[in-house]
Amino acid sequence: MNTITQEHIQVGEIANGLPLTIPVYRLQGNGSGPKVYIQANMHGAEVQGNAVIYQLLEQLKTQTLASDITLVPYANPIGCNQKSGEFTLGRFDPITGTNWNRMYHDHSKLIESFVHEHIDAPEDEIKSKFRALLVDQTQAFLDQPAYRVNTGKRIAVTLQRLAHEADIVLDLHTGPISAKHLYCPEYAKASASYFDIEHVLLIPNEFDGAMDEATFCPWWQLSEAYKAQGRNIPVWVEAFTVELGSQEKIDLTEAKLDAESILSYLNHKQAFIGAEFEPKPITRYACMLDDYLAFYAPMGGMVEYNAVLGSHIKAGDTIAKILRMEQYLSEKPLHEITLDTDAITILHFASASVNQGTELYKFFTNYFEL
Amino acid sequence: MNTITQEHIQVGEIANGLPLTIPVYRLQGNGSGPKVYIQANMHGAEVQGNAVIYQLLEQLKTQTLASDITLVPYANPIGCNQKSGEFTLGRFDPITGTNWNRMYHDHSKLIESFVHEHIDAPEDEIKSKFRALLVDQTQAFLDQPAYRVNTGKRIAVTLQRLAHEADIVLDLHTGPISAKHLYCPEYAKASASYFDIEHVLLIPNEFDGAMDEATFCPWWQLSEAYKAQGRNIPVWVEAFTVELGSQEKIDLTEAKLDAESILSYLNHKQAFIGAEFEPKPITRYACMLDDYLAFYAPMGGMVEYNAVLGSHIKAGDTIAKILRMEQYLSEKPLHEITLDTDAITILHFASASVNQGTELYKFFTNYFEL
Amino acid sequence: MNTITQEHIQVGEIANGLPLTIPVYRLQGNGSGPKVYIQANMHGAEVQGNAVIYQLLEQLKTQTLASDITLVPYANPIGCNQKSGEFTLGRFDPITGTNWNRMYHDHSKLIESFVHEHIDAPEDEIKSKFRALLVDQTQAFLDQPAYRVNTGKRIAVTLQRLAHEADIVLDLHTGPISAKHLYCPEYAKASASYFDIEHVLLIPNEFDGAMDEATFCPWWQLSEAYKAQGRNIPVWVEAFTVELGSQEKIDLTEAKLDAESILSYLNHKQAFIGAEFEPKPITRYACMLDDYLAFYAPMGGMVEYNAVLGSHIKAGDTIAKILRMEQYLSEKPLHEITLDTDAITILHFASASVNQGTELYKFFTNYFEL
Amino acid sequence: MNTITQEHIQVGEIANGLPLTIPVYRLQGNGSGPKVYIQANMHGAEVQGNAVIYQLLEQLKTQTLASDITLVPYANPIGCNQKSGEFTLGRFDPITGTNWNRMYHDHSKLIESFVHEHIDAPEDEIKSKFRALLVDQTQAFLDQPAYRVNTGKRIAVTLQRLAHEADIVLDLHTGPISAKHLYCPEYAKASASYFDIEHVLLIPNEFDGAMDEATFCPWWQLSEAYKAQGRNIPVWVEAFTVELGSQEKIDLTEAKLDAESILSYLNHKQAFIGAEFEPKPITRYACMLDDYLAFYAPMGGMVEYNAVLGSHIKAGDTIAKILRMEQYLSEKPLHEITLDTDAITILHFASASVNQGTELYKFFTNYFEL
Repeated sequence: MNTITQEHIQVGEIANGLPLTIPVYRLQGNGSGPKVYIQANMHGAEVQGNAVIYQLLEQLKTQTLASDITLVPYANPIGCNQKSGEFTLGRFDPITGTNWNRMYHDHSKLIESFVHEHIDAPEDEIKSKFRALLVDQTQAFLDQPAYRVNTGKRIAVTLQRLAHEADIVLDLHTGPISAKHLYCPEYAKASASYFDIEHVLLIPNEFDGAMDEATFCPWWQLSEAYKAQGRNIPVWVEAFTVELGSQEKIDLTEAKLDAESILSYLNHKQAFIGAEFEPKPITRYACMLDDYLAFYAPMGGMVEYNAVLGSHIKAGDTIAKILRMEQYLSEKPLHEITLDTDAITILHFASASVNQGTELYKFFTNYFEL
Repeated sequence: MNTITQEHIQVGEIANGLPLTIPVYRLQGNGSGPKVYIQANMHGAEVQGNAVIYQLLEQLKTQTLASDITLVPYANPIGCNQKSGEFTLGRFDPITGTNWNRMYHDHSKLIESFVHEHIDAPEDEIKSKFRALLVDQTQAFLDQPAYRVNTGKRIAVTLQRLAHEADIVLDLHTGPISAKHLYCPEYAKASASYFDIEHVLLIPNEFDGAMDEATFCPWWQLSEAYKAQGRNIPVWVEAFTVELGSQEKIDLTEAKLDAESILSYLNHKQAFIGAEFEPKPITRYACMLDDYLAFYAPMGGMVEYNAVLGSHIKAGDTIAKILRMEQYLSEKPLHEITLDTDAITILHFASASVNQGTELYKFFTNYFEL
Repeated sequence: MNTITQEHIQVGEIANGLPLTIPVYRLQGNGSGPKVYIQANMHGAEVQGNAVIYQLLEQLKTQTLASDITLVPYANPIGCNQKSGEFTLGRFDPITGTNWNRMYHDHSKLIESFVHEHIDAPEDEIKSKFRALLVDQTQAFLDQPAYRVNTGKRIAVTLQRLAHEADIVLDLHTGPISAKHLYCPEYAKASASYFDIEHVLLIPNEFDGAMDEATFCPWWQLSEAYKAQGRNIPVWVEAFTVELGSQEKIDLTEAKLDAESILSYLNHKQAFIGAEFEPKPITRYACMLDDYLAFYAPMGGMVEYNAVLGSHIKAGDTIAKILRMEQYLSEKPLHEITLDTDAITILHFASASVNQGTELYKFFTNYFEL
Repeated sequence: MNTITQEHIQVGEIANGLPLTIPVYRLQGNGSGPKVYIQANMHGAEVQGNAVIYQLLEQLKTQTLASDITLVPYANPIGCNQKSGEFTLGRFDPITGTNWNRMYHDHSKLIESFVHEHIDAPEDEIKSKFRALLVDQTQAFLDQPAYRVNTGKRIAVTLQRLAHEADIVLDLHTGPISAKHLYCPEYAKASASYFDIEHVLLIPNEFDGAMDEATFCPWWQLSEAYKAQGRNIPVWVEAFTVELGSQEKIDLTEAKLDAESILSYLNHKQAFIGAEFEPKPITRYACMLDDYLAFYAPMGGMVEYNAVLGSHIKAGDTIAKILRMEQYLSEKPLHEITLDTDAITILHFASASVNQGTELYKFFTNYFEL
């Protein structure tokens, strides 16, 4: 039985002075495996990752560990407690509207001078010094005078500081109503086959503020910068956003499957000794981020969603019917909405009621087998 | 093919001066049947009633009508457009918190003097004069100086004014995540068997502000008041709140079934000539309102809902598991919640995340076959 | 220097398991004065009461106390942290819409049997036994199985349980944009002159769920019930809602004045020994609750508020101009709104943007000098 | 008396099918002056601009106009009607959190090829062809299949399409609680002296999604691109964000002054013939955008704001006191917050209740006389 330690880290204070804390669980390996960091619930309504961390802990406590593993449920103590009606309004800071998962720290500016200073250093030194640099920079950000750090950045960068210690970072999210899918950096495509996830989104090396990007982009950029100088080094860190399904839902059985999917990937990465976690023999489909189609409601109305999540639809298929009761006599009350391209249905909006221009669906287009 | 007419009634104005309007559809019968009023979507997220009105209109246009029928979708133009994240925050006025379905007008004070003045009048005269009184009173309420009428009451009483013209009033709602059920006044219990709804809640003669109460209570109270004077008159009006299932969802196929259920009831009430709508042969269970158990979350946490909607559970059955990841080491992270009585599961909360004291479930207890 | 003790009472838990706690401060007197309970910030945006409690503590620590005094800032740990944009959305439970100050426990049902059982008891016994009954009943409410107590009631009744120990209860609130005013039970009218508050609202003996009513109604009802039996006993408890001005604002200087106003009242009630707090020589105006006029926006639009808070206006005075820019050509863009009666302006809405029917103002009408 | 025409443009539809429309007012000049576009209320709570447009129209109808002038109040029909409690939650799309004033269209990609194709064209042709290009591009954006355009972009780009027709663009905003200030592109610094606004923020040529940037950046970039080719052309378009003061407030008297300030600038730009609008002789202070300091709350708590809006404060001055009542005994309940640099106070947060990291103030630092 492995020892699990628990720590509560403080990431803020609210108006009545109560501290905002996040529980951090840690298991220690023999040091031979890659360090692993897994967090869940940065978006308030996306709670299933907490159940996955529960199931991971249940499994991990009896494994022989090569890796140090850090697990952080309840990553956002504001977001997961922000109610508006029955709904958990936890996607963005309710004061500013800023997406909680777009506030991580960008390290792009560090690359050039680092490469310049370590152009001939041995790989081990590059890796350890660059990691130390990332850790130091995020720590320095947090050590600024308190008046320079806003609420969301303090939460995000505190977590990022922890994540930079790791070689593997998994950020557990969900869609609104969604099929499982994986955000995977293009260079790590091979790893996607070890998750039991049918839909893989291949993302480029562009920092847009999310946790996965915050932790893999610096290493990818580093590798690219060395390549520009004529030297090849690996990208030492992999980071993924794992989209577990739908928000506002805890399903412990499904969480066990999701935990096994993650364990399969970690096993492939040699996080364990003698473990038998293997990926399931499923067909995986991939799509480039540029081909990930957001389909906005072409009119306001009330929507019946007809495209089944995960289904492969053909151009011309009906994906939704939009009811417009006030047109019952004058025009037509029921509008069939079709898609003009072949696609895989990944997610749809959580409510039947939409404005013109509300994001109705997201689809994989130009998808291919991985 | 029957003629359907459409009217837009104005029930308010918003800050940029745009009018709030509601579409009203009307079909005319031969005058021999009871007048019918059906509305939907007073609570913003409860949209399925609009689809039911769509399916009703599709059927009604080809029936031979004995009854005049008025149908009002989109009853609350503020509520159905009030978004907060993806969710439609339409259960209460976002400014005041007042439930939109608790703002109808109470006529209790009218009964005593009316009975006194018409103690020996013939039934026809009682019925027509009392109806005229209800219509006049609601109209008078709306005709007050505008500064005396708040936003929600203007919407509610405008609709109530229309509903008082009818002998049968159906207010189409949904629960959060819910099995179908029917709010039925105790005196109209016999009518409940004509709807295809398995769960019937029998409600007493107490005005709590809802549309069904606003329209049946005066007539029930009238009947009671005559009885107290030694004269028996019928309760001439029936009103029901029809709970169609879950919120935030349009399902046109299910809506067709719900429309048929309503048509079966209306057929029993002789709204049609030569129609063949019949109730389905299902077992119906009833529960007194006092036995309708609200089960609040005994702790804060993240909930897996284990009681299947509509299922008959036994005392001691697990109805939920509450995950408390911050207790993973110190206490126990997974709490099994049981119910201490036999019950039918009617609805549960829409989100996995709950505070201590959030309404987790509602159950029929002490239920019986109807 | 008096000893001040502090306790944190838990009133709930949120979704990530964090406890909701409220700080309770206590000072002990020599036992000769009435027991005092003061709370603040039950409505989240109404924060000035916390500053008043701060200033009270600063004064109280050097007074010679006859009374035991309990002070509770931050009474609602959910409400005061519920943000929606910049605004603190703390007037009602964001899940249900229920006003946090309408969830206290009603004891009306206890009166009849208590009077019956203690009809001839000495006053001291009546007082102590009835107090014990109120305390026991609220404690019993809280001791129910957790699944029977909703979020707001647990907070409210926990506080009410504390308040029932006291002879004097002050619940510190604010209006939206507001002049100072005092909710005072009719029987305690004489006490209103000891507060430095110009506007006094006299409220009847009807329980509507608020803290002041929850604590004075039982004692008033008790006195009335004895009177109906031919025996006169005093109303032993006084409770007031003190409306300190506008929400969303901390003003420490004003808070000192408000603290002195409260100390003047408490001094009159002999809470202190040798203190010199005296009411200010101001004219006080009173108004019956039935004459407290809510003036709703007669149209949607954007409002310039012209009635100065606390001002005495004449029938026909312009109280607001409502801008309707979309009518600039077609009708008239600027509507002057007048009041048709003399009145004192007590409060107005916090935003310029209103729907038709939004509560624009509240006025004292038929007011009189106290 | 000039003719004013009115048009309603549709920018969307909501869930119950009601159209979202914006009123557009137009006056025609003799064609000799620059074309002017003025809009207000893109952020829902920032309503004072509507009153300024009202006062502008009152003045403009009697002026001799050289310029065509387009005025658009109520620019955002979703934002200005989105209530959450009393507050107008109109800064961001309530579904997505996206700031309504960050969704305008970026034209940066057009510059290079345009300059290449028109490197030797006469200035008149460059100006008219580039304007036509901007108009065409925004129109093309709107003409896409409806499913490609989200709610906020449809509103923003429809307005931008109108604004591109003009040589002068004014976007009327307010801060939360704020002194008047002006966002001015660096190249147009000289124009800032014609507004009666003491505080001027000089912004660089970087597109961040706002209306002012969307309309001046292309022209500035064009001028820069020609300069890089060795040719000097003017920047033909000026655009400003005018921050009128505090949100949630209509003040018609102040609006008249703000209208005069704008008329003074327009007069300087020769929009009128024979008009006498002149700027007031006030000292104007400027600050580079990089020196515009956001000061975040260093702790959670309840804030008394001590820095007067518009005041020049010295390093070490107290700008706020933060009350932490739960620390009354254990630590210190009142924390004095100071600023470590000289500054002008421009705006502060709208609520006393803040989380650690909430934006408390914005200050001009390193400011200078304009």
